[in-house]
Amino acid sequence: MSETPAPLSHTIRVTVRFGHSDLLAIAWHGHYVQWLEDARQSLGTAIGLGYEDLIKVKFAAPIVDLKLKYKRPAKYGDKLDVRASLIWQPVPKLVHQYEIRRAGDNELLTTAETTQVLLHPTGELALNFPPFLEAIREKWQAGEINPPQDPQTSWA
Amino acid sequence: MSETPAPLSHTIRVTVRFGHSDLLAIAWHGHYVQWLEDARQSLGTAIGLGYEDLIKVKFAAPIVDLKLKYKRPAKYGDKLDVRASLIWQPVPKLVHQYEIRRAGDNELLTTAETTQVLLHPTGELALNFPPFLEAIREKWQAGEINPPQDPQTSWA
Amino acid sequence: MSETPAPLSHTIRVTVRFGHSDLLAIAWHGHYVQWLEDARQSLGTAIGLGYEDLIKVKFAAPIVDLKLKYKRPAKYGDKLDVRASLIWQPVPKLVHQYEIRRAGDNELLTTAETTQVLLHPTGELALNFPPFLEAIREKWQAGEINPPQDPQTSWA
Amino acid sequence: MSETPAPLSHTIRVTVRFGHSDLLAIAWHGHYVQWLEDARQSLGTAIGLGYEDLIKVKFAAPIVDLKLKYKRPAKYGDKLDVRASLIWQPVPKLVHQYEIRRAGDNELLTTAETTQVLLHPTGELALNFPPFLEAIREKWQAGEINPPQDPQTSWA
Repeated sequence: MSETPAPLSHTIRVTVRFGHSDLLAIAWHGHYVQWLEDARQSLGTAIGLGYEDLIKVKFAAPIVDLKLKYKRPAKYGDKLDVRASLIWQPVPKLVHQYEIRRAGDNELLTTAETTQVLLHPTGELALNFPPFLEAIREKWQAGEINPPQDPQTSWA
Repeated sequence: MSETPAPLSHTIRVTVRFGHSDLLAIAWHGHYVQWLEDARQSLGTAIGLGYEDLIKVKFAAPIVDLKLKYKRPAKYGDKLDVRASLIWQPVPKLVHQYEIRRAGDNELLTTAETTQVLLHPTGELALNFPPFLEAIREKWQAGEINPPQDPQTSWA
Repeated sequence: MSETPAPLSHTIRVTVRFGHSDLLAIAWHGHYVQWLEDARQSLGTAIGLGYEDLIKVKFAAPIVDLKLKYKRPAKYGDKLDVRASLIWQPVPKLVHQYEIRRAGDNELLTTAETTQVLLHPTGELALNFPPFLEAIREKWQAGEINPPQDPQTSWA
Repeated sequence: MSETPAPLSHTIRVTVRFGHSDLLAIAWHGHYVQWLEDARQSLGTAIGLGYEDLIKVKFAAPIVDLKLKYKRPAKYGDKLDVRASLIWQPVPKLVHQYEIRRAGDNELLTTAETTQVLLHPTGELALNFPPFLEAIREKWQAGEINPPQDPQTSWA
């Protein structure tokens, strides 16, 4: 009987740019979507699930669901640690959960979740785990996937 | 005994730009957040709840919750009707629900919801309806607020 | 002996969004590039030189040169008239000049110029006018191309 | 008789994001403006001329002129070295020149230049060097300002 493997997590550090801050010096809520993507992509590159890996096997993984909870504002100049965690799923979906914390005092500013489905090269929805994902899941379950743990500066 | 007033709705029309489409000619999921804001702001301007109205009374209305469900992709060149509906609330929050449909065949592509809280000029959370919002609610309940109903081209 | 035909001009109207304004309520200088593209694309659609027309003939028209002069700031809420003019060229390049004026008082805020080269479906630089462009030039010289003249709301 | 001091240069490394690439896998020309800003801001932070330093003295430094020459395209996944150089000026303007090279083969993809004027806290144009800039210039001329020389990952 196998246990559910722990999430695969990875953190990037971003800085709230001047141009991303509004009249009140607060980061616009839409920019967070890019930060989530950057963290997810940085994790993906580390574990073999980046865009470039999907392109290689001609699968697409469109976002079908996006949720964000903004608890406290990120302000101009803040350094943020954006942590993406890929959650083990019984079905062929990619579900990531995110925490955005202010670097320094580690205050939790935002939580988020994205869900991606997998599309075959033909455009059809994948109903079973495709081989490239099955291979990752086996290594994941065996504890052989260990993305870098220190905050990385932004992928982009 | 008063009934809950119907939502205040308003639709803008946007076109998926070349620069907003990815390698697969599909609009990037993050751009939708801007379209939601454009529809919400266009509705807000029509009913006295735009950013400029909030600035006048020195209230802020930060987004605290954002949810998007992507059912079908929007593609390069698609005309989209983005409908924002302000939902009547028993508490001082602004809740908008959204539908994004492909103009022409009217296919539903995306649904979304945003929640905003209200902050006093001092930065404190509004626990009661501030006067400017109370005034809008009275007119709303009296059926005196009627935002334009045809799809408007994008506010921005 | 033929005269140089007058530029083909077209104006779109945009509004400076809240999210495009910085701490000083001034539009970030990078957003102008999108407005230029929107005006150029709106003109292109009107005269048969939009992205969709280029895709049809499998030509690409990458920007090789971009110049902007910011004379006065655009501020949050300003309505802007962005005028794109395609300038007649003796060589197979697309050169557009732009003027951005504040709607209302018509004050000139920004001037700009973009240059695009044309790439064959093979990726090679076009050294002669390709047939689709030659056809447009003939109609242009005959005075048969007349893009809409009133400010249009933004293409996107 | 004093010589003109050499430019102050600094390089950041960015990666072309999936979401910043168009249908042809080429980075949209507008995104470069953000990369230039990131490199300029990273240099500014290193030498005491970042946004945060300007805010402290209540000066603004709006961009009045922006020029970009795109020689070769940046493609999805490319690592780019964006080098910003502050050029010594006889007048109170900030002029930066930029080179964007593909990391790895060091091919020059893009050159650019930005010019900023300085505005007093009152909003008036600075006609003389303000004290905070004079102080930097003295240290610059004395060879005492040495921004980090290895490519830094992106400021943001």
